Amino acid sequence: MNDYYFSSAMRNLKPSAIREILKMSSDPAVIPFSAGNPAPDAFPVEAVARITAEIMAEQPILALQYSVTEGYDPLRESLRTLAKEHYTAMGAQDELMVVSGAQQGIDLCCRVLCDAGDVILCEDPSFIGSLNSFRSNGVQLVGVPMEKDGISLSHLESTLKTQKNVRFLYLIPNFQNPSGITMSAQKRKAVYALCSQYNVLILEDNPYGDLRFAGTHIPPIKALDSEGRVIYCGSFSKILSPGLRVGFVVAPQAIIQKMTVAKQCADVHTTILSQLIAYRFLKEEDLTAHIEHLRAIYRRKCKLMIDGIKENFDSRITFIEPEGGLFVWCTLPQGADMLAFCKSAVSEHKVALVPGSAFSADPSQVVSTFRMNFSTPTDEAIQEGTRRVGALSKQFLK
Amino acid sequence: MNDYYFSSAMRNLKPSAIREILKMSSDPAVIPFSAGNPAPDAFPVEAVARITAEIMAEQPILALQYSVTEGYDPLRESLRTLAKEHYTAMGAQDELMVVSGAQQGIDLCCRVLCDAGDVILCEDPSFIGSLNSFRSNGVQLVGVPMEKDGISLSHLESTLKTQKNVRFLYLIPNFQNPSGITMSAQKRKAVYALCSQYNVLILEDNPYGDLRFAGTHIPPIKALDSEGRVIYCGSFSKILSPGLRVGFVVAPQAIIQKMTVAKQCADVHTTILSQLIAYRFLKEEDLTAHIEHLRAIYRRKCKLMIDGIKENFDSRITFIEPEGGLFVWCTLPQGADMLAFCKSAVSEHKVALVPGSAFSADPSQVVSTFRMNFSTPTDEAIQEGTRRVGALSKQFLK
Repeated sequence: MNDYYFSSAMRNLKPSAIREILKMSSDPAVIPFSAGNPAPDAFPVEAVARITAEIMAEQPILALQYSVTEGYDPLRESLRTLAKEHYTAMGAQDELMVVSGAQQGIDLCCRVLCDAGDVILCEDPSFIGSLNSFRSNGVQLVGVPMEKDGISLSHLESTLKTQKNVRFLYLIPNFQNPSGITMSAQKRKAVYALCSQYNVLILEDNPYGDLRFAGTHIPPIKALDSEGRVIYCGSFSKILSPGLRVGFVVAPQAIIQKMTVAKQCADVHTTILSQLIAYRFLKEEDLTAHIEHLRAIYRRKCKLMIDGIKENFDSRITFIEPEGGLFVWCTLPQGADMLAFCKSAVSEHKVALVPGSAFSADPSQVVSTFRMNFSTPTDEAIQEGTRRVGALSKQFLK
Repeated sequence: MNDYYFSSAMRNLKPSAIREILKMSSDPAVIPFSAGNPAPDAFPVEAVARITAEIMAEQPILALQYSVTEGYDPLRESLRTLAKEHYTAMGAQDELMVVSGAQQGIDLCCRVLCDAGDVILCEDPSFIGSLNSFRSNGVQLVGVPMEKDGISLSHLESTLKTQKNVRFLYLIPNFQNPSGITMSAQKRKAVYALCSQYNVLILEDNPYGDLRFAGTHIPPIKALDSEGRVIYCGSFSKILSPGLRVGFVVAPQAIIQKMTVAKQCADVHTTILSQLIAYRFLKEEDLTAHIEHLRAIYRRKCKLMIDGIKENFDSRITFIEPEGGLFVWCTLPQGADMLAFCKSAVSEHKVALVPGSAFSADPSQVVSTFRMNFSTPTDEAIQEGTRRVGALSKQFLK
């Protein structure tokens, strides 16, 4: 056999450009501005080593045996407190479940809320991992353009007016991936009000919320949720470890119940050793101090990248200076061949960038943007990489 | 809001009876014949503790950082060798990927191969976790009755003749869950030939294959696969640890590629710490000796349960003596109220059984079967539990 029947949703879904470029950037000669990995010095290695040894000494059977789908109870209890007090993202009507990374939370949310052909609205551009999960569920994506302070309200309203079967609006309000844009407090209120008016749910994804290194904190949209309208995804990937695959979802109880049934079908439960590590990390370590440590790392690395851009890039390339997160979003002057630019960057100048088209709700749309990551490369690589892309930009835009 | 729109597949899917009964059986006074957990002494605790400490000392960043979707390369290489040599379940046209437990392999397989409304054929009864995953993907299940040596060939053929859009046949050929039945070598060949004739794929699930404690080994259906027709799911859950959530899938390359894209959407990658533990376990420990150790445990526990049934149960209850695996499948005499029997067992006699209806392709079907597990309870609990269910049986069938 060499002609297999694939589901209609999967037939047209290509491997993510990010993953493919990640593979290319595993060439040690290539500077990885393409990734989204935490910096190596952001990992609390000593704490995790100590905690893991304690678990294997004190609770080995618990760590190896089957566990319950909704998550290890003591971890859920800690996370409820964290979601309420630290993130202000849990109301009285809400429940919380543990998931195998926020990606799973997003996927399960789509799986329980959408039939094939239904519509999800998203910021355009948006995170490719989520967009592909929605696509793999056969959902139709409708992008809403971004402004400096977040999603365009006028476009959102006109889209809500015209689209049928809209199941939810997907948002990353803090230091959005890929644009780095943070939605203003005012806009968060307006977006919530619009979704309330048109009776549409909101899926709020907040993987980078703790990584604010400039500006002032803005409460999540979930903090405004008086109606049970917002599903909130949190993650340990940026504050503890992405490799452990632990995240959590806060949502109205009825939605969490359905998502738990879907999670039984998807992977039974999240690796219990990972959950135990996350639990003890929250209990035994100083999360606030650790987050301050991370912010200092990313503040420094972001500044190095911004300085490198200002110093080296052709001045016609514009960029968004983020207040947190991991990414700088750049735009070539209109008419420039962005794909040729990114191709030349990786093949000739050995710097991997991610073409902006990867993040479009409609990937056939022509865009002149690209994404650069400052968390993965070393400080020296950030400086050298911005020099190389700068040299390319001056030559390319001549 | 209190009226949410749920996807049509999820709307009718109830939490699995097994999970609900597992919760009930967490009452320490209840003897857990309902579970499917490995015996506590089946875990290689010392080896895993040593291996985990080594990983945290030698490769902490690797263990905590993002990894690739298809699985940690050295683990995939070890698993390819294991799949070829130990399981005889990998051909020249096949590729292998790591999944977050075989459950994920089964779910992804359905997700990439089936549209809503398509048909999956399964043994009836079959594993509820897989059936629910298929249901949650909106697929229509068609059950094929079982005989003593596996699925009924005549029913399989008539079903293949009449059903349209059959995407695959789901099988657990070794010590099937829940029936304990092993498919004969002859029937494996006949099933493969029939599927070849009707051009239908086979999903072969082999979580218990290593737990044979009687009879002689039979090669998997995958060993017969000359056409790229069989997708094979393997698991570490019964030979190392279910809590780590590591399994693998062997399938034709085109299918593994699609499943890798689907896995990106589902959970990005399997917990890398779990993968590193599995890798070092295969490399550093004596798997054959460990499997012999497991077989001895389950041989003893199964014999205790069979002896207890023979000694205590009303003789009108029939049962299947398995050659491996974790379960004994019992049938009440025709006309007996099986649900009332199981309810009385747990509430009055404090022994949790799983009603056979949980495993039916059509859950509204009236059946008089129930499943008993011998791996989770202690030896004493097996003896006490069979005494209690025996006493109930004599009283109930009076």
